[in-house]
Amino acid sequence: MGLQIIIGIMGPGETATEDDKRNAVEAGKMIGSNGWIVLTGGRNSGVMAAASRGAKQAGGTTVGILPGTSLQEVSDHVDIPILTGLGHGRNYVNILSSRVIVGIGLGPGTASELSLALKAGRPIILYQPRTEDLNFFCDLAPDLVQAAQTIDQLEDLVKTALANEV
Amino acid sequence: MGLQIIIGIMGPGETATEDDKRNAVEAGKMIGSNGWIVLTGGRNSGVMAAASRGAKQAGGTTVGILPGTSLQEVSDHVDIPILTGLGHGRNYVNILSSRVIVGIGLGPGTASELSLALKAGRPIILYQPRTEDLNFFCDLAPDLVQAAQTIDQLEDLVKTALANEV
Amino acid sequence: MGLQIIIGIMGPGETATEDDKRNAVEAGKMIGSNGWIVLTGGRNSGVMAAASRGAKQAGGTTVGILPGTSLQEVSDHVDIPILTGLGHGRNYVNILSSRVIVGIGLGPGTASELSLALKAGRPIILYQPRTEDLNFFCDLAPDLVQAAQTIDQLEDLVKTALANEV
Amino acid sequence: MGLQIIIGIMGPGETATEDDKRNAVEAGKMIGSNGWIVLTGGRNSGVMAAASRGAKQAGGTTVGILPGTSLQEVSDHVDIPILTGLGHGRNYVNILSSRVIVGIGLGPGTASELSLALKAGRPIILYQPRTEDLNFFCDLAPDLVQAAQTIDQLEDLVKTALANEV
Repeated sequence: MGLQIIIGIMGPGETATEDDKRNAVEAGKMIGSNGWIVLTGGRNSGVMAAASRGAKQAGGTTVGILPGTSLQEVSDHVDIPILTGLGHGRNYVNILSSRVIVGIGLGPGTASELSLALKAGRPIILYQPRTEDLNFFCDLAPDLVQAAQTIDQLEDLVKTALANEV
Repeated sequence: MGLQIIIGIMGPGETATEDDKRNAVEAGKMIGSNGWIVLTGGRNSGVMAAASRGAKQAGGTTVGILPGTSLQEVSDHVDIPILTGLGHGRNYVNILSSRVIVGIGLGPGTASELSLALKAGRPIILYQPRTEDLNFFCDLAPDLVQAAQTIDQLEDLVKTALANEV
Repeated sequence: MGLQIIIGIMGPGETATEDDKRNAVEAGKMIGSNGWIVLTGGRNSGVMAAASRGAKQAGGTTVGILPGTSLQEVSDHVDIPILTGLGHGRNYVNILSSRVIVGIGLGPGTASELSLALKAGRPIILYQPRTEDLNFFCDLAPDLVQAAQTIDQLEDLVKTALANEV
Repeated sequence: MGLQIIIGIMGPGETATEDDKRNAVEAGKMIGSNGWIVLTGGRNSGVMAAASRGAKQAGGTTVGILPGTSLQEVSDHVDIPILTGLGHGRNYVNILSSRVIVGIGLGPGTASELSLALKAGRPIILYQPRTEDLNFFCDLAPDLVQAAQTIDQLEDLVKTALANEV
């Protein structure tokens, strides 16, 4: 394979909306089609599971960074499960391992991942965010935050972020 | 001593404003006066250092949960330094170890701590927050988020949060 | 208080022998009497609980670095509980936070702590070790490993290790 | 791909011997040939780099679990780099993510990984160990420790360990 480009897709698990999950499938497909690896929190739920499913439909490869110590809760669509045993502490591993982070939907866990990404200097792209959520993250680190309304915009923004990596 | 009650004070380091630091000293004093331990991120900077200084002025005890592996960056006002070596991954330890988290000011690191606190079910109290920041966290977990405008309000809210612990 | 000196006592939990626990009480007392803080893995079991009990009997202060996210399993003799949520990953925090590590008894968890201590350059002192265990750790890092047969020897070796800190 | 089987190869970095590195290449080839993923600590050094190189020579896929926050120190032979930012705390992630751990050579870091593996109930197979090292780990958890003298024995023992997974 050679060194792979890993793109994180972060979003709620059990509390993901139908829109979140549809967007996650679509984003996963787009990332998989580009030959990039989709990295998620790995559980069989919400945005994590949907993004991994999308990537697999496009023939992509998926990595799941799991909070627990066993494969019990892994999504069926994860190829490479990383078991951390760190609980929500694994959120930091999620974002460090991703060159670009796509945020879909929002809950406390996702908010922690997006914030940690900004703290670590990783670019985040929010897909169809609420205006107030976009503003919140823009205030934290204006240079690292973008929003996409369509899948084509999202693809362009990921490509631009990868091209601008230091 | 017996089992101590630990209250976290979370806020920016190098980017803390003068208001943030003044509020942090004040909050540290209040918490130290109540016989509770003040827990911070431990570094010699911003809200962390100010909160620890306040606690010591009131005769309190301070714990610092440091990101690195040496005592080099510890605040002079930390009594008990916990070296994690986890980098920003230590933010999860900060909030789990705190029964109540007081947020003063905001940056990406603080936002990650407040979000992780909500994910872990810990109550957070924002001291003199911007309205949009308060709204952001209220949207994430309405039952766990409060705001205080004065130090007396903050003290009351911490006491109430401790009394309501499950 | 001012910056405290923290000494770790590491040993088995449920599988600790009666000798291990007796030695741990004794070592905890000695460390507490010297005004140093006793740090353990915090659980209400084996060497952790015994070392904390000894420290409290001598009027000392105790820190427990717990693997879980709640106070449920904390020893009655821990003053300051640090909840990490990192599972056995917390073993790295145990040893980094300790200036000197005293090993009493041995199991897989303790072996990981002593090994991580050597990896991080922390001195370890084995209290009444089996010869083959002492040899194993001496082979890993001869300059960092000592053994004590009596509590007075242990006290001297801790003092020497603190005096030699770089 | 579907859910991959991940085998960890753990051994010293800078202090690895020529024998260690030769054994690591050989073990990496064997694991890669079987279609299993080789997981290492990811750095461009010692057993980590050699095991990954062997796996790539056999057309296998490699995962590297790195201690730092950037790709700077990653081995050229790692396909999927996981950046943890946890320092040596990442050793726990190494072993949890591996269904079976192969130990080649020994230093403090490797000893911590093998010990953590036993603590977490993961089987370890030591490849051409020193007798005293084998005895040390056998004493810690007799049911989880095996030794292989030849690459064919190693292959058989990995297959048996996978077949016996609970």
